[in-house]
Amino acid sequence: MEKKTLLTHCTDAPGLIAKITSICYQHKLNIIHNNEFVDNPTGQFFMRTELEGQFDDPAFLADLDAALPPCTTRRLVDSTRKKIVILVTKEAHCLGDILMKTYDGSLDVEVAAVVGNYDNLRQLTERFDIPYHFVSHEGLNRQEHEQKMLEVINQYQADYLVLAKYMRVLTADFVGQYPHKIINIHHSFLPAFIGARPYQQAYDRGVKIIGATAHFVTNDLDEGPIIKQDVIPVDHNFSASDMAQAGRDVEKNVLSKALSKVVDDHVFVSGNKTVIL
Amino acid sequence: MEKKTLLTHCTDAPGLIAKITSICYQHKLNIIHNNEFVDNPTGQFFMRTELEGQFDDPAFLADLDAALPPCTTRRLVDSTRKKIVILVTKEAHCLGDILMKTYDGSLDVEVAAVVGNYDNLRQLTERFDIPYHFVSHEGLNRQEHEQKMLEVINQYQADYLVLAKYMRVLTADFVGQYPHKIINIHHSFLPAFIGARPYQQAYDRGVKIIGATAHFVTNDLDEGPIIKQDVIPVDHNFSASDMAQAGRDVEKNVLSKALSKVVDDHVFVSGNKTVIL
Amino acid sequence: MEKKTLLTHCTDAPGLIAKITSICYQHKLNIIHNNEFVDNPTGQFFMRTELEGQFDDPAFLADLDAALPPCTTRRLVDSTRKKIVILVTKEAHCLGDILMKTYDGSLDVEVAAVVGNYDNLRQLTERFDIPYHFVSHEGLNRQEHEQKMLEVINQYQADYLVLAKYMRVLTADFVGQYPHKIINIHHSFLPAFIGARPYQQAYDRGVKIIGATAHFVTNDLDEGPIIKQDVIPVDHNFSASDMAQAGRDVEKNVLSKALSKVVDDHVFVSGNKTVIL
Amino acid sequence: MEKKTLLTHCTDAPGLIAKITSICYQHKLNIIHNNEFVDNPTGQFFMRTELEGQFDDPAFLADLDAALPPCTTRRLVDSTRKKIVILVTKEAHCLGDILMKTYDGSLDVEVAAVVGNYDNLRQLTERFDIPYHFVSHEGLNRQEHEQKMLEVINQYQADYLVLAKYMRVLTADFVGQYPHKIINIHHSFLPAFIGARPYQQAYDRGVKIIGATAHFVTNDLDEGPIIKQDVIPVDHNFSASDMAQAGRDVEKNVLSKALSKVVDDHVFVSGNKTVIL
Repeated sequence: MEKKTLLTHCTDAPGLIAKITSICYQHKLNIIHNNEFVDNPTGQFFMRTELEGQFDDPAFLADLDAALPPCTTRRLVDSTRKKIVILVTKEAHCLGDILMKTYDGSLDVEVAAVVGNYDNLRQLTERFDIPYHFVSHEGLNRQEHEQKMLEVINQYQADYLVLAKYMRVLTADFVGQYPHKIINIHHSFLPAFIGARPYQQAYDRGVKIIGATAHFVTNDLDEGPIIKQDVIPVDHNFSASDMAQAGRDVEKNVLSKALSKVVDDHVFVSGNKTVIL
Repeated sequence: MEKKTLLTHCTDAPGLIAKITSICYQHKLNIIHNNEFVDNPTGQFFMRTELEGQFDDPAFLADLDAALPPCTTRRLVDSTRKKIVILVTKEAHCLGDILMKTYDGSLDVEVAAVVGNYDNLRQLTERFDIPYHFVSHEGLNRQEHEQKMLEVINQYQADYLVLAKYMRVLTADFVGQYPHKIINIHHSFLPAFIGARPYQQAYDRGVKIIGATAHFVTNDLDEGPIIKQDVIPVDHNFSASDMAQAGRDVEKNVLSKALSKVVDDHVFVSGNKTVIL
Repeated sequence: MEKKTLLTHCTDAPGLIAKITSICYQHKLNIIHNNEFVDNPTGQFFMRTELEGQFDDPAFLADLDAALPPCTTRRLVDSTRKKIVILVTKEAHCLGDILMKTYDGSLDVEVAAVVGNYDNLRQLTERFDIPYHFVSHEGLNRQEHEQKMLEVINQYQADYLVLAKYMRVLTADFVGQYPHKIINIHHSFLPAFIGARPYQQAYDRGVKIIGATAHFVTNDLDEGPIIKQDVIPVDHNFSASDMAQAGRDVEKNVLSKALSKVVDDHVFVSGNKTVIL
Repeated sequence: MEKKTLLTHCTDAPGLIAKITSICYQHKLNIIHNNEFVDNPTGQFFMRTELEGQFDDPAFLADLDAALPPCTTRRLVDSTRKKIVILVTKEAHCLGDILMKTYDGSLDVEVAAVVGNYDNLRQLTERFDIPYHFVSHEGLNRQEHEQKMLEVINQYQADYLVLAKYMRVLTADFVGQYPHKIINIHHSFLPAFIGARPYQQAYDRGVKIIGATAHFVTNDLDEGPIIKQDVIPVDHNFSASDMAQAGRDVEKNVLSKALSKVVDDHVFVSGNKTVIL
C-alpha cells in the first residue's frame, strides 16, 4: 500500500468532487483526507486528496484527465522528501531553526545545501553535515552575482529555494528560474513596513504588535503570495533592536511553518494569493 | 435555489465520499463546501456537505439511504435559525454577549426565552424584548426545581439549551430530556480545576494562564464533549477575583463561538468528543 | 483612606524615583503600585504611582513640584469614573460592547451620551437609558456638521470622546478641541491598509491575519498614537465581507481594552507613541 | 560604568521603595528599570532594580541592609552569564532549541554540560562543542543513579539545572541539593494531565488546546512553582502522537522563555508561586 497526494486545480464545474472521488474509488484508492475549496470570485476549484492504495494502473490518471476540464493542473505527488537549498546572509536564527527541525525530525525535508553571500554561517551548517557555499557579492554586479549563485544552486535540482534572511533583492531573471518555488521570510507583518528596516519603521510608528510574513517570491518585491503570517505583542519598553530580537522568534517559526505546508503539498497558488488545503 | 446542509455520520467504508457526492450530483445539487473526517481508532466517518439546488425530489434522500451503511445517522438540515433557551443565575456577561450578538447580527440564533433561578437578569433580558422567567429554587429540592424549570423551558421547543453561567448542577433526568442539546460554559480550562471555585484554585496553584471551556452537558459533571476552549495569560498581579474578572471575557467569547458552531450544524458528537467540520 | 494615582511625565534626571517616592512616604501615602519608564532616545521619564492615604495636606503637591524639573506634567487623579461621549455611524458592535460592559461592570466608565450621524443606533442606546442624539450630516458641509456635533457633545463635558465606528474624518479644528482625548478604532492592523475599505484591501492582498488598532486621533489621519492592537487569523475561505464580520470581534475587544487603559489613567502620550504603565 | 541588578524580597512595610531608591541615589547609582510587587494576601514585598554606576563602595550594601527589615533576602547580581547543566533522556527538541539559541545569541547563558541517561543526544551536543556525559540508569536503583548523576553535575558548579525532557522523577535528596535551581518542562498545561502520558490523556479527553508548563522542581511532583505556560489549539484531526508532535514546539518555546527569565534574574519564588518582575 502506497500513499500519494492528488492535487487538482481547475475551473469550477458541477460534479467535480463526485467525478474525482468516484475515479479514485473505481481504482480502489482509499481517500484518507480530502479538502476542497472553490474561490467564487474567480471560479477556481482546488482539491487536495490524500490517497492510499496501488497506483500502478496508468488508467487512473488517464481516467482523471478525461473527466476533468481541459485547463486543469493536476499533480499526483508521492511522499518523497522534498529537497531544498537555503540562501542566507549573516543571521543564524532561521537557518538554525530549519537545521534543527530537520535534525530532530519535526520538519520533513532534505537540506541539500546552504548558500551564503557571507561566510559566517559555514560552521553552523557544516556541523549538520550539510555543504556550505560562500558566493560573495563583492566586486560583482547583481547579475554577475546571481549567475554565480545559480551555478551553485542549480546543481542541486532543489524543489524549493528558501531565503532564510537572505538580504539581497532577487532579479526577475533569477525568480523566473524558480517560479513559485522560492519562499522568503519578510521581517514584518506585510503589507505594513514594506521595504528596508521594518523594525525601525515599527519602532518609529509605535506599534503594539510586530510580525513576520512568509511568502513566495515574485517579481514584485514584498508582494508575492503570502503563505503564513504571525505576530507577537510589543510595547514601549522595546527599542528597535529589542523588536528585531523579539521578531527573530516569529520569523523562524513563520518560515518553518510555511515551509512545512509547502513541502507537504498543502499550498496552491491562486493569482497573488495562496489556498492552503 | 435553496441551501441545505447534509450531515452524515456512519461506520467508515470505501467510497463513501464518492457515493454521497455522486448522488448529490445526480440530483443536480451543487456542493458549496464539503468537509469529511475519518476517526481511525473508532472507524467512524463524518461528513458535512453544504448543498445548493432544488430539494423537492424525495428520491434524493432515498438514494442516499440506499447507498449508505445501515447504521448511518443522516440529517438534511435547512437554514432555519435555531431556537435556544438560555439558563442563567446572576452573572450578566455571557447572557449579555449572546443578546448583543443576536441583536447586531453576528450570532444567527433566536433567543426564545431566558430562565433564571434568580430575578437579577430580568431587566437586561427584557430590554431586548425577550421573555424572562424567574424560577426560584428556594424551598424546593433539586427534582422539584428542575420540574418547574422544565415546564417553563419545554413550552419553547428549543433546539438547544444554553447554560450561560447557570450555577446549578443538572440531574441525569433533566439532561436526558435534552441529549447533546445542552451547552455549558465552564469557567476553567478543563480538565484543570474541575469542580467549585476554579479561579480560586487557579490562583492558589499560581498558574500563568486561565481559560474557559464550552461543552455539551452529560451526566458526568464537567466531563461532557468539549466544543471550544480558549485561554488568556495571567500573572502574579492577578488576585483570584482579578482572574475571575479577566476570565469573564474568555468565558463569553468561548460560549458564543461554541454556540455559533453548534447552531450552524458544524458539530458532531463522537463518544465524549466532538468533531467540528 | 482614599486612593489616588500620581502621574508624572518629565525630562529624565538622576534620583527621580527616590525623590517622588520619598515625598509620598513623608506624607504617609502608601504606594500600592509603582511603574516607571525612561525612554532613552528622548530622555523622557514617565511614572504612575497608585497611592493610598490622606491627601488633604496641600504641601504634598507643593513638595512634589519643588522637587521635580520645571517642565514636568504632573497630575494627581482620583478614582472618579471618567465620563465619555460615544460617536457612532451605523454599526452596532463597538457601541454595544461598551454599553454591555458598562452594564455588567467590566468597564468602569460613565457613558454620558451617544451621538450618531444616522439614527440607527437610537433604540439600542436608549435601552440602556442613555441619551441618543441624531446629528445628520446631510445637506451640511463638514464644518457645519462638526459644529452641530460639538454643540451636542460639549454640553456633556466628557473626559474622552470615543469613535465607535464613526465613519467620518474629523477636521483639525474638531480634534484641536479634544487633544489626546479622542479614541478611535481603526479596522486594520495599522499601518497596514491605511485609508478606505481596509478589509477589501486585506482580502485583495491575501493576508493570513487581520487586525484592529485603537489610537488617539490627531490631525494626521490614521497616524495618531497607537494604544492597543490585536489580530485574528484568516484564510482563503474568508471573503472580504467574512473578514469584516470576523474583524468586528477584534475591533470591539481592542477598543474596549484601549478605553479601559485610558480611563484608568494608564496611558501617557509621548510624541506619536503611547507609554502604558 | 557597571550594571548590576538588585533583588529585594522582604515583609512589606511603608516606604520601602523610597528607602531603597534613595540609597541608590545617594550612592550615585542610576536606576534603569525598577519593578516592584506587593503580594497583599501574604504581605510580601518584591523589587527588582536594574542599576548603573560604580559599585565599589561597600557602604552601599551596608546602608541597604541597615534600612531593610531583618528578614530580607537581598541580592546584588552582576551581569555574568549564568551557567547551566542540561539533563536529557532521548528527545532532541528542547535541548536543540537551547543549544541553537545560545549559539545565535538569543539566549544569554552558558551551557556547561549535557548529562543524559541515554547516549542518543551526544552527537548533537558535541556538534556545539559542549561536553556530553552518558550516565545510564540501567542496573542501578534510583539513589545509585542520582548519585552518579550528581558526581558528574556537581563538578560544573552550575547556577541552574535544566530538565530538557529528562524523563525520570528526581528524589527529594537530589532536589534538596538544588533548591529552586532546577527548571523542568512538563508536557501539559498543569495542573491538567498530571502524571504520565499527558498527550494520551489530552487525546482521550478530547481537549481543543494543549500546552506546556515550565516550573521549578520541588519534592511534590508536578507541583512546583510555575514560571511559564503556553498553549496551542488542536482539534479532532490530531491523534495522540500528532498532539505530542505539535506539543514539542510549545514545550521548547516555554522552556526557553522560562529559562531566559530565570537567568536574567527576573523570577522570585514566593511559596509555591513565582513573581516575575
